[in-house]
Amino acid sequence: MPITFTVTATCPRTGARRGRLQTAHGAVETPAFMPVGTQGTVKGITAGELEELGAAIIRGNTYHLYLRPGIEVVARAGGLHRFMGWQGGILTDSGGFQVFSLERLRRVEDRGVTFHSHVDGSTHFLTPERVIRVQNVLGSDIAMVLDQCSPYPSTPEKPREAVERTTRWAWRCLKAHQRRGQAIFGIVQGSVYAALRRRSARDLVSMDFPGYAVGGLSVGEPKETMYRVLEATVPELPADKPRYLMGVGSPDALLKGVRQGIDLFDCVLPTRIARHGRVLTGRGYLTIRNAVYAADMAPLDGACGCPVCRRYSRAYIRHLLNAGEILGARLTTYHNLYFLARLMEETRRAISEGRFEEYYRALEPQFTKIYGGV
Amino acid sequence: MPITFTVTATCPRTGARRGRLQTAHGAVETPAFMPVGTQGTVKGITAGELEELGAAIIRGNTYHLYLRPGIEVVARAGGLHRFMGWQGGILTDSGGFQVFSLERLRRVEDRGVTFHSHVDGSTHFLTPERVIRVQNVLGSDIAMVLDQCSPYPSTPEKPREAVERTTRWAWRCLKAHQRRGQAIFGIVQGSVYAALRRRSARDLVSMDFPGYAVGGLSVGEPKETMYRVLEATVPELPADKPRYLMGVGSPDALLKGVRQGIDLFDCVLPTRIARHGRVLTGRGYLTIRNAVYAADMAPLDGACGCPVCRRYSRAYIRHLLNAGEILGARLTTYHNLYFLARLMEETRRAISEGRFEEYYRALEPQFTKIYGGV
Repeated sequence: MPITFTVTATCPRTGARRGRLQTAHGAVETPAFMPVGTQGTVKGITAGELEELGAAIIRGNTYHLYLRPGIEVVARAGGLHRFMGWQGGILTDSGGFQVFSLERLRRVEDRGVTFHSHVDGSTHFLTPERVIRVQNVLGSDIAMVLDQCSPYPSTPEKPREAVERTTRWAWRCLKAHQRRGQAIFGIVQGSVYAALRRRSARDLVSMDFPGYAVGGLSVGEPKETMYRVLEATVPELPADKPRYLMGVGSPDALLKGVRQGIDLFDCVLPTRIARHGRVLTGRGYLTIRNAVYAADMAPLDGACGCPVCRRYSRAYIRHLLNAGEILGARLTTYHNLYFLARLMEETRRAISEGRFEEYYRALEPQFTKIYGGV
Repeated sequence: MPITFTVTATCPRTGARRGRLQTAHGAVETPAFMPVGTQGTVKGITAGELEELGAAIIRGNTYHLYLRPGIEVVARAGGLHRFMGWQGGILTDSGGFQVFSLERLRRVEDRGVTFHSHVDGSTHFLTPERVIRVQNVLGSDIAMVLDQCSPYPSTPEKPREAVERTTRWAWRCLKAHQRRGQAIFGIVQGSVYAALRRRSARDLVSMDFPGYAVGGLSVGEPKETMYRVLEATVPELPADKPRYLMGVGSPDALLKGVRQGIDLFDCVLPTRIARHGRVLTGRGYLTIRNAVYAADMAPLDGACGCPVCRRYSRAYIRHLLNAGEILGARLTTYHNLYFLARLMEETRRAISEGRFEEYYRALEPQFTKIYGGV
């Protein structure tokens, strides 16, 4: 088996569960947040630092690596792990989301998707088979099927077509997949429509994937809508397989996702906001570039034990960001990833100690207040 | 005494010497290269990494810190060491070089220098006294006098005036200086004119500074001219005081400077070229962005033991730089600083083991060939 997944503890009163996902590159304790390394690097952070802050698996990006440096280069290195010097787990997306969120798309047909490169404008044609072949070469521990995302909002017709195509493509991906040691996950689509989501989930579950993702959420719909969709979808997914909620990374949404039984998350949020000078703290976002921090010698988060908070002040980091020094983004990125890694660690502990519900009740109102609006 | 300097070994056949510079923030084994941290950071590198790669002292920048974040902020942090989380030595320049290399200067009078900020265009007036007061507040281990640099080329008249003013200013700096635990160095000027250089050196030596810098070199003159000036200047400087050659950092020039009796160097070269994708190796510069490295899985320098060369390939680093990923500049910067730190370490060992001349003869022709042209 390329991966094995074991549920090691469940919350008796909510859907939350703790698990262990064993990959060819180590074990991942779940629920886990996967930092995003779009172009073969989590922006500004080394592989050694990811290990240090406790990331066991990261999410790579098939679309970007396919365009640059190109898969021949990654193949020459012996796969993505070796290319980027990272020994932990890697999940690669299929590129579907990128292709569908491009402005200068593209033709979508059953055969595949035609799009123009954001790097050099060249025309590319991706099929489900090709997307899998590319991920086979990248050698990620978990590959994702090519799926069709629907924009929000949309009438039910478009998402219905997208679900049907996603099902057909998932089957082709599964047949094309052939790398030993690599798992492949299906992706549930269906926009905000519960019936479509259930149908999509059932279609995929009948194909018996080793894991399932919930895609096409966090694309502009209200958070309450997202939670409603999760409520309709998660019960359709087998309890003994890992569940991955794509594109979600705000602290409140992580907690709520865990409560519904999600095991894996990924999002550019912590790294992207870091580069713009926003950091995650137990008291909410802190926009460190604000003038109020110009002479503030406190750490980013007084309750945080990360190396950045132990060594540097808000005033120093604000100065770095204002002066355009790349060390600024590096420090805020490290802190934000550390913050989410600790949050997930505490969440796992609460589950295995049988006190997830109290933990959730104590944290959720505060997190929803300070992080729920975004 | 704010600093003590002890010569621990001398080369019997050249001017090279090994020494130990004791500061309030640790001992610096000399000859040493000081990485440049212009805006309170060596670009892209943390204080912890500087320690790890063996930098014992860095060169900070009074002019930039004075303008941003402003000395009140650094004062509030308790000085520059605390502000930037760096526990090793710091030498701050006076800002003179920056002021004189600004395009939108400025009026220079005996009283001081008027210039416009490159940050916001505001007008500033710096006097020798003020430059020292700023450095007192920054709390560097070594402060530099305000000096007047001459452009290259110039007729002897301008440099003569500059030398005379530099002498008057040096005296005012010395009188204004009052921070215990901080040393102050004089700066020899005189452009490429040996007689002027000797005169400047004698003027300063009569004031009995705890150390002396040779400034106004590496400003466009041929390297041979620079070495000629050093030959005329260094013998004028007392043997028991540290000697600092400002703005020099190419491997060939470091070797030649050491041979003439220089103890300290600083230069933006290793960090600046790193950001543009050029790295230092035992075989010369390597422009890592070249297409020829696109699938080259070798490390930057096969003979280098730095963490970057142990973990990452040329192809990966090239990809990062091409994709605009800040990790690229971070890795090349680390490697270049490590390269110079090891070069200086080997140089010190050769001196203390009494084999500097052979070491120099083996390395210098190669280094002059591959690095001498720049």
